[in-house]
Amino acid sequence: MNTTKENHTVKEPKLTKKGKETRARIVAAAAKLMFERGVAGTSVEDVQQEAGVSSSQLYHYFKEKRELVLAVILYQNEQVLGSQEPLLSHLDSIEALQAWRDAIVQYQTEQQFLGGCPIGSLGSELADLEPAAREELVAGFLKWELAIRKGLQAMYDRGEMQKHARPERLALAVLSALQGGLLLSKIHKEAGPLEAGLDAMIEHIRSHLI
Amino acid sequence: MNTTKENHTVKEPKLTKKGKETRARIVAAAAKLMFERGVAGTSVEDVQQEAGVSSSQLYHYFKEKRELVLAVILYQNEQVLGSQEPLLSHLDSIEALQAWRDAIVQYQTEQQFLGGCPIGSLGSELADLEPAAREELVAGFLKWELAIRKGLQAMYDRGEMQKHARPERLALAVLSALQGGLLLSKIHKEAGPLEAGLDAMIEHIRSHLI
Repeated sequence: MNTTKENHTVKEPKLTKKGKETRARIVAAAAKLMFERGVAGTSVEDVQQEAGVSSSQLYHYFKEKRELVLAVILYQNEQVLGSQEPLLSHLDSIEALQAWRDAIVQYQTEQQFLGGCPIGSLGSELADLEPAAREELVAGFLKWELAIRKGLQAMYDRGEMQKHARPERLALAVLSALQGGLLLSKIHKEAGPLEAGLDAMIEHIRSHLI
Repeated sequence: MNTTKENHTVKEPKLTKKGKETRARIVAAAAKLMFERGVAGTSVEDVQQEAGVSSSQLYHYFKEKRELVLAVILYQNEQVLGSQEPLLSHLDSIEALQAWRDAIVQYQTEQQFLGGCPIGSLGSELADLEPAAREELVAGFLKWELAIRKGLQAMYDRGEMQKHARPERLALAVLSALQGGLLLSKIHKEAGPLEAGLDAMIEHIRSHLI
């Protein structure tokens, strides 16, 4: 793999205001299609059409599909984590965890469980096929995990949790249950798995409170 | 969708011994490739080559890729659940849950977390694209969930769990944590998420014991 090229993509080149807008439109169009059809099911031509740009315009910003995929991962990392704010940054009480859980369940229900988690789906498809994509996905999930951990650590540091509790381990467990719940709810088209997974984890965290 | 055709596929037509062997070889080859590259990344020609059959032979058993995909789902449902036996059928103690958890973690570690869960990956890719595939995946996950539930229900029925415990809810939570753990471990290429998710669930079940 050409690391230089990848870094170039990830850093985003200097662009005019209009150039940035066009690039953003391409990335949003690609993200939409890849969310709906998967990465393999989305051609560069599909993206071009969806974004309403010419092939030379698209080529100006992304020399190959792989670059576009990396940009989509960065975009979805931001979208997914951003959509959970401000709740995600303050998961430092059972009530806050509950409100965050409710917001996720409500959002997925409104979406009729279509697509599940954009990052999880990209991860499922790309983890073993695109090393550079996998790295960006790991970075996205790490941010997510750290946001959850921060809240739990705050509870721990305030002395609200039993000494043997391990906030870093609990945060990873919460994210696992969330991802599995999102995947199973996407397959079953019902909230049950998502609710069961998250509720069990919140109850589990509650059992660590003093 | 042509329901008749789908039922025909799922029921498997009457075949000679040799016919069954050829069909099984095609399905196993398709399952292998789809596990490695995804469904969209696997062409009928790829499968033909991997299985060492002619295109007319393949066409004799599967009229279109969609039929092959359904056969792969049935195959993977059997493979995945079968690979967890006899542990999966007897999850009626904390020790049994622990042994099952250890076996899954060991297997995934040996596989270097390549591919994650074959059914979960198929579900992530197909849930919103192929209604018939989604139904087969739901059926597979339901079997899995019921196997977990059976063990927990046995613990409950023997009076080992608190009255308020809900084995059916706990089973779904365990499966969510397992699926999320498998997905995140596939992305991170380490056992951490899988272990954290399952350990938290087993601890959570333990907290319901009398």
